Formats: sequence, structure tokens, C-alpha cells
Amino acid sequence: MLERFLVPKEDQILVDSDSMTAATKEIFMKMGLSEEDSQLSAEVLMVSDLRGCESHGVSNMLPIYVERYGEGSRDLGINPKPNFKITRETPTTANIDGDDGLGLHVLPKAMEIAIEKAEKYGSGSVAVHNSRHIGMLAYHSMMALEHDMIGLTMTAGNSLSSVPTHGAEKRFATNPWAYAIPADKEPPFVFDIATTQVAGNKLSLAKRVGAKMDPAWITDAEGNPVLNEVDLPDNREDYMMLPFGGTRENGSHKGYGYAAVAEVFCDILSGMGAGFLMPPNTYGEMGHFVQAIKIDGFIDADKFKKDMDDFLRGLAETPPVEGQDRVVYAGLPEHEETQIRLENGIPYHYKVIDWFDNIKAELNLNFELKKL
Amino acid sequence: MLERFLVPKEDQILVDSDSMTAATKEIFMKMGLSEEDSQLSAEVLMVSDLRGCESHGVSNMLPIYVERYGEGSRDLGINPKPNFKITRETPTTANIDGDDGLGLHVLPKAMEIAIEKAEKYGSGSVAVHNSRHIGMLAYHSMMALEHDMIGLTMTAGNSLSSVPTHGAEKRFATNPWAYAIPADKEPPFVFDIATTQVAGNKLSLAKRVGAKMDPAWITDAEGNPVLNEVDLPDNREDYMMLPFGGTRENGSHKGYGYAAVAEVFCDILSGMGAGFLMPPNTYGEMGHFVQAIKIDGFIDADKFKKDMDDFLRGLAETPPVEGQDRVVYAGLPEHEETQIRLENGIPYHYKVIDWFDNIKAELNLNFELKKL
Repeated sequence: MLERFLVPKEDQILVDSDSMTAATKEIFMKMGLSEEDSQLSAEVLMVSDLRGCESHGVSNMLPIYVERYGEGSRDLGINPKPNFKITRETPTTANIDGDDGLGLHVLPKAMEIAIEKAEKYGSGSVAVHNSRHIGMLAYHSMMALEHDMIGLTMTAGNSLSSVPTHGAEKRFATNPWAYAIPADKEPPFVFDIATTQVAGNKLSLAKRVGAKMDPAWITDAEGNPVLNEVDLPDNREDYMMLPFGGTRENGSHKGYGYAAVAEVFCDILSGMGAGFLMPPNTYGEMGHFVQAIKIDGFIDADKFKKDMDDFLRGLAETPPVEGQDRVVYAGLPEHEETQIRLENGIPYHYKVIDWFDNIKAELNLNFELKKL
Repeated sequence: MLERFLVPKEDQILVDSDSMTAATKEIFMKMGLSEEDSQLSAEVLMVSDLRGCESHGVSNMLPIYVERYGEGSRDLGINPKPNFKITRETPTTANIDGDDGLGLHVLPKAMEIAIEKAEKYGSGSVAVHNSRHIGMLAYHSMMALEHDMIGLTMTAGNSLSSVPTHGAEKRFATNPWAYAIPADKEPPFVFDIATTQVAGNKLSLAKRVGAKMDPAWITDAEGNPVLNEVDLPDNREDYMMLPFGGTRENGSHKGYGYAAVAEVFCDILSGMGAGFLMPPNTYGEMGHFVQAIKIDGFIDADKFKKDMDDFLRGLAETPPVEGQDRVVYAGLPEHEETQIRLENGIPYHYKVIDWFDNIKAELNLNFELKKL
């Protein structure tokens, strides 16, 4: 993550991750989720916070989930006890009705099915419709790692934020992708990105920490790329997000294309239809897609993982350009950050801790956050 | 394709595509390929030229293939009569030894296997090792369309051109991806891109037509992104290519990540090991990966294709920003260009036609290019 998104030192409160998991689990249980689903959902958020991906951890997402559960209606909110159902299946594919359940706990079950299919047939692909936010994609893709498989996750929906290249109207959400690929001794390759210039949740994070938008990160209200450094406008109507690349000359058609592919796999293949054509009252409705590919179907997993070690070490040992300390690969800094945060605690903005204090009082909860 | 890459009007010679296919087939046969493989290889190049993707058509690629076949040695050249062999197989995966054959005719056979597997089990994935250049990726992905499947193609190898983010040494080829997704009445979605800022072949094309490099398209000799408009240096040692995004702030870690994923699927999963770690004498060695996914395994293909029509039409009807005529989706301009070129002929640079005249004399061939 870029430096500018980090919580400034003077605003940080360090919290032990186990105590934060327990608190988050208690909140989910109060929302009506089963103990198992609450535990799983808390874990997905915590893995995100541990990896330094706080844009998708408890700070940004938990308050939104709580608000939507609170609305109580299936049409506007999230279903705490979804009736997860397979609507079509072949040996290597499945389509699942998420029944308006939160993707945090719905999607791991879809990935389990993909992994089972890959174990039997070499590969498995599962689409999910009628679901909601899945948190950090990497969590779901990484489930494949211990099975010596490559995991892929995509998500898309109708909470629109981004324009197509040259477009003046929103057509996509941030439609992110994540691949997880195992290695032997080196930390695994875990590549998790939005197809917009910046992940949607990083915008609110930027707002909180006072960070600027870089040139070509957002458009003005008419869809023109903003080519100087600006603050994020207060009003959501005053900007739109650009596909990665930013401008056509700099390759925004590539971000647009990957966004469109995610839209197809998550929303159209799952049967919901394109997000921007969904009825406007299906608030926060999302489709997902996961795929597991068994390495052993192509080559011995041991050779593969040793070759991955050489590959990843080779990338990390690439001589850096002047002014840079080193070259990293996707997943390496997140692995390092996890070790640090497991030991020292997770640095939350004090306003986030305030939110936990308030919700504890409001909902009559018992958790204690352990500050380090 | 950007305007700057087009052959200037005054340098153009329009040639009928059938006569160019016949000429190309004759050249391949002279190189020792079977009639069937020659026909197939010529078709792959011609579909590229028809779609306006001349960077991957006869202009750039055929002279290189001829040169490498001419070298006659399996270690430096291309094998005209490869012994295509499956080295591992599961119901939905296969690994294929390309036996140093040209990917143009090797990869369609791999995709046929992926399609057969998808027909039976819902999905099929095939890796190919020890192969060579595959031409325009879209051709191979588009093979899936008529089967109501989604096709994916990737390729990677050790003809290195591109640095990782912040890196000062090359670690990747241009490692491109292509997805093809069917629709009903609308032209299909066909997304075919390099994971570098610009496709490798477009650099030589730029040279021929006198086009400049945009800011952050290439690095200097030390790996620093060149942030002003420049001519492509004459010497290949004086620049390297940047992953798409260009700079870290503008998201080059995304291009780097997608390049790494292609490297894994094509080179490591197929058993060759990472391109930048391959022995230096394996010149032009490439691995590939194709995948076919049957739509019917998730949802009725008819509903899917109708939803795709709505999706693609909706994208093309997005109001454009001021100064732009329209919004397009990947595959739409290429479809339109194909109609135009089938009727009017393909605009080749006169130097390309000179090459055909020379090779005809040199190799004692009989073809006649039909100029329109």
C-alpha cells in the first residue's frame, strides 16, 4: 500500500489481533449470524488487517456491515442467516445462490466447493449470485494454497463507481481480482488488486488520513480525468473512478477490460446480469467467482513450488532503480507486515477504536480490546 | 490501436486478404510445415491483420519466423514438424510438449483439447511448454466462442523486455493475456493485451511509422521510467519496457502482477521454470496456457448471450466525455475493422510488400498478391 494511506503515527492505537477478532465475532453474532459464520467473518477481516490491507479490515467495513444488517430488510440489507443453495452444477462448475448473505462467510464455502472439484477433476470454478461484500479477496484465493492449488477470486456488483475509457457515466464497481499461488519456502505470491486506479475503500481511508488523489486517479463530475493532485471531493456526485491506467494513452483500456471480464464472470455468468443494468433497488447486490486449479494436474507440485521459490526470490533480488530500497513481489510485503502486526498489534486510527467503544455500549457487548 | 501506430496513408498498399493468406501459406510450406499447419498458421496471422492488429500479422512476424526456421537448428530455431505430445493429463487439465514448434499452429491444438475437456466436464485448462510465438492471442481465445465457452490465452517466455516495478533489470517478456466471451447479436467481447505499457511488436511498428513513445512507456538504460515523450532508442540496450501503469503511483504493480501470473501459468506450471532463469541459449522459448469454460455449466448459454448483448450494447452506448466520439468495448473496433478490410483489402506498408516480393524471388515461390 502507498505510504499516504497509512494511519499517521500520532493517531495510532495498537491493538492485539486476537482481542480484535473476538470483538468482531461478538458484533457479528449480535447481528444474527451463527457462531461459525461470525468466527469466519471476523477471521476474514482480521487477515486483512494483519496483512496491512486496512482498507478491507474492520475500520472501513465493519461499520457498513452493521448498518446494513441493522436495516433488517432483505431488499436493502444483508441476510444474517442465508440459505446457501447450488442452482446448477457440473463436475467442475457450480452456480450458487448466496441468498443475500455477506460474502465474507458465503464465499469461503464456494471456494471449498471449487477446491473439492479441483481435487477430483483438476480444476473447479464456482460463481455466486445474490451475495454481498466479500472483504479482502486474497483471503478466499489463499484458501487454495494449502491444497497445492492456484486460487482466483473476482467480485463485481451494482454499487457503481467507475467509468469505462472515454465514458462519462459509471458502468462498474471496482471489480477486483486476486490470485494466490503457492511456493515452498518463500512467502506465497498473492496478488489482489482493484481494476480501478485505487481500491474503493482506499478513498475513504485517504479521506480519514488526509491523503491526496494522484493525477488520473479520479474524474471530474463530467468524466474527464483529473490530471493534477487534488483532495477527494466531499460529494460523491463530484467525481468518478478511473480504470487502472487512468488515461487511454497510459492504458486505461486495460483496467476497463479486466473490469469487464470480472463483470462477466461474477454477474452475468452467475445469472444476475450486468451490474449497471440491475434494478436500482438491489442495493449492494454482488456476484462473485472463484476458481481453484490443481498444480499436480500439470506437473509435480514439489517441482512447481521449488521453481516458484526461485522465481519469487529472483524477483525480490532484482537490483532496484536508484532511490528505491528493493523490488518486492505481490504478497511479500503483506507477509512481512503480518509477522510484525502479530507481534506488535495492529495500528488502528483512534476514531476506529472510538467506534468499537460506542458500538459496545450501544449493543450491550462484553468484548475487551487489548491495547498494546 | 492508437492512431500513431497506423501505416500513414501515403505509404499504404491495399492487398486482398485471400491472396495474402495464400502467399503466407506458401511461405510456411517452404519452411517445411505440413500443408495443414501452414494453412492454420497463415490464418492466425491473417485474422490478426484483418482485425487491425498488424503488430501481430505478417508485417512484423513473418520475416522473424522465416529467419528462425532458416537457422535450421532446434536450439536456436523453430521446429517445422514438431512432435506434439501430452506429458500429463487429468479430466480437465493437460500439459503439452510443443517440441519447439511455432505456437501459431501448436496452440490451436492445445485449445481444442481444452474445449473437448470443457465440453465433457465444464472446464478445461492446458499448459504448453517448449513452444514458440503464438501470434495474436485473441485467435486462440476466440476458438471457444462458437462452442458457447469463454476462452483465455496467456503466453510468456525468455525473450525478456520488461522490468518489475522499481526494478533495474528485465524479468519478463510482454506476457500478454486474451479473453474471448461470446454474445448473441453483438460482436463478441475480445480483450487482448500485453502486460507491458505497449505490446512488444508495437515498438518496431512505431519505429517504422515514426511514432513517439508516450511518457512512462519505457525506461532509460538504468531502469528509470522516462517521463517525457521520446523516440524509441536505436539500441535495444538503451531502454526497457515498463509494466502497464508505468509508474508505481499510477499502478505499475498491477501490470507487474498480471505479468507474473502469466509467467506462472505459462512457464512454471508447464515445467519450464521462470523465463528469466532459463538457460540463455534457449532462444525464443515460450510457454503458453489456454483455458475454456463452458457457460452452460453455470447458466443457460442463451440467457448468458442475451445478457452479454445488453451489457456490450450498454457499454457502447455510454455517453462519451467531451472531445470523444464514443465509448467502445474490447473487440468492437476490431470487429468493425474486419468488415472494412475484408471488403477494401488490408493496408500494408510498402516495405512489407517489398519483403514479399524479395522472399518470392529468393525462395522461388509462385504466389501473386492481389493489390486493390
